[in-house]
Amino acid sequence: MASEKPYLAMTCTAPVNIAVIKYWGKRDEELILPINSSLSVTLHQDQARCQEQVRAALPSGYLPLPTVRRLARKRRSDEEEDPLPLSLNYKVHVASVNNFPTAAGLASSASGYACLAYALARVYGVESDLSEVARRGSGSACRSLYGGFVEWQMGEQADGKDSVARQVAPESHWPELRVLILVVSAEKKLTGSTVGMQTSVETSPLLRFRAEAVVPARMAEMIRYVKERNFQGFGELTMKDSNQFHATCLDTFPPISYLNDTSRRIIHLVHRFNAHHGQTKVAYTFDAGPNAVIFTLDDTVAEFVAAVRHSFPPESNGDKFLKGLPVKPGPLSDELKAALGMDPTPGSIKYIIATQVGPGPQILDHPHAHLLGPDGLPKPTV
Amino acid sequence: MASEKPYLAMTCTAPVNIAVIKYWGKRDEELILPINSSLSVTLHQDQARCQEQVRAALPSGYLPLPTVRRLARKRRSDEEEDPLPLSLNYKVHVASVNNFPTAAGLASSASGYACLAYALARVYGVESDLSEVARRGSGSACRSLYGGFVEWQMGEQADGKDSVARQVAPESHWPELRVLILVVSAEKKLTGSTVGMQTSVETSPLLRFRAEAVVPARMAEMIRYVKERNFQGFGELTMKDSNQFHATCLDTFPPISYLNDTSRRIIHLVHRFNAHHGQTKVAYTFDAGPNAVIFTLDDTVAEFVAAVRHSFPPESNGDKFLKGLPVKPGPLSDELKAALGMDPTPGSIKYIIATQVGPGPQILDHPHAHLLGPDGLPKPTV
Repeated sequence: MASEKPYLAMTCTAPVNIAVIKYWGKRDEELILPINSSLSVTLHQDQARCQEQVRAALPSGYLPLPTVRRLARKRRSDEEEDPLPLSLNYKVHVASVNNFPTAAGLASSASGYACLAYALARVYGVESDLSEVARRGSGSACRSLYGGFVEWQMGEQADGKDSVARQVAPESHWPELRVLILVVSAEKKLTGSTVGMQTSVETSPLLRFRAEAVVPARMAEMIRYVKERNFQGFGELTMKDSNQFHATCLDTFPPISYLNDTSRRIIHLVHRFNAHHGQTKVAYTFDAGPNAVIFTLDDTVAEFVAAVRHSFPPESNGDKFLKGLPVKPGPLSDELKAALGMDPTPGSIKYIIATQVGPGPQILDHPHAHLLGPDGLPKPTV
Repeated sequence: MASEKPYLAMTCTAPVNIAVIKYWGKRDEELILPINSSLSVTLHQDQARCQEQVRAALPSGYLPLPTVRRLARKRRSDEEEDPLPLSLNYKVHVASVNNFPTAAGLASSASGYACLAYALARVYGVESDLSEVARRGSGSACRSLYGGFVEWQMGEQADGKDSVARQVAPESHWPELRVLILVVSAEKKLTGSTVGMQTSVETSPLLRFRAEAVVPARMAEMIRYVKERNFQGFGELTMKDSNQFHATCLDTFPPISYLNDTSRRIIHLVHRFNAHHGQTKVAYTFDAGPNAVIFTLDDTVAEFVAAVRHSFPPESNGDKFLKGLPVKPGPLSDELKAALGMDPTPGSIKYIIATQVGPGPQILDHPHAHLLGPDGLPKPTV
């Protein structure tokens, strides 16, 4: 049988997720247990995903994720017979590719580790909760295991068994919700998020207070807004939580600044846009970088994109400024232009990716999706 | 006597102060009572001061500060006879001038109201504590009533009688301490501090925590560092408190951003400079604007100014880049240049004002210091 089937392969994809209640800080660096729960929106994989092929081959070797091996052992000891002719000592090849540019600042490690955990589990026949496996790679990766709206419960146990992701609402729950990623021109990031959050935990008095006294109520509130599809509440709380996360970065010593002048102009634009309309029609959130992720509803996309184009005119790539979902040219009233009251800063936003809420990890079973060739090495990219 | 002396005039000066433990937020908007105590360094008036002449003339009219009138009434009822032939109904003329540019971003209202309170009190013969009078004009003005290192105790009483300024150490206490004001090129400020702090009190969960749980210990710590002339402790805590103040601004909704990309480059420069030396030799603090105020000791000024010149080369005014106290051209080693690791951004710092710790309000008694002419109107400026 080994000669007929020298390997078992699986190609999967996993999505990017954007936190609206932010995760920043671990209570256990080894197990990657967070100091507070968090909540994210899974982005559609048409615009942002990681694709990975896992191929387990003879003979003995190491497995990149010891946790999967442990789960697989546990599963095998629970069962009478093993349906898959697979040794835990097989060598594993992994190939990985993203469909989004690094410049987009989307957390590629989250989708990457979610994808790896998902693919390995399929190869090894693990059926249990994969939160722990994904989390051990990169904390927020566990939120990329589901589509729609996903909560990462911080848990209380020292072993982290209850620090798991669960779906709050599926991707079909709020079909009007849209996501715009505004990719900002920037110098390279000075502080990575792993080191950054560790320094914050050690030095920021405000971070501890946030985690203990602010986030629990915000989690409950945000879940309610999502379930009710209450954009006003969802949008306002999303902005407040992004701001508070960046406030704790600034309270870190030495301070961490992920927002730059363009980020701040985007924040200003959003508040002016909302003030003009007398309600929260658009909301921003920023992760560990200057790029903005904007949430809005489908009926507002065209007007807001027009406002962005007005305040941040494309420098040379007018035709490639907008990627992803089609956006029809929007109206921009003179009243709104006046209300924005900003001097245009050409070129400070590189481009916009328009997307929406999407599903969790997927299995790709057509052969051309494979990333590894018959020799077990990555196929040449075309 | 009234015909011989139709008016009584007094010309005074008052200094600018820079908070190292920040005041942000009032618990009483009417009485201007703060939500936390604060501590400041009084700058030398050679480089930054407000000068005012107060002239009280016949006959009845209003007095700009009702509190002074009340204190003066109290004082008169306490005494048998009045040494000054001065009616509380006299008309009062006030002229005011600063010796520092508005662009320097130094809180001109603090020195202005301190000067006014001081001059009026001299004219009216008020001898009591002037904290309340100055504070009612602009909260931090009470800290400009003293030289050296000044604490504004928040107080506990509802009427604010115990919310007073007191000197922690005189201007002669720490002669090596130097202050550099880095004036940053910037767009105009979007949020004034009065409205800003009110919004912060109403919307920032972190601000309340800071005021109640963080500042009290920091005040005690900072007073100890000042008394011990411990620059390491003083500098590090100054930076932390500036960062935390700006963090609470960012946690405000809508968020307030006073720091811009140049401010953040200065912060970065200071941390790299200190890291290179293996100790805190330089410290920054920022108020409600992008300009940095730098504290350091006299033996470090030349090298740090050279580092600033290297990272932020003057655009066209190389000869006027440095104002105030003389600074001799400093050495800048290749090791330090490499350690700074920053791309120079020409023109983003407009100029530097070098100064030091200075005394409190002064009386100017030579006639050419008068700002008002014999007709009681401001003299033409030359």
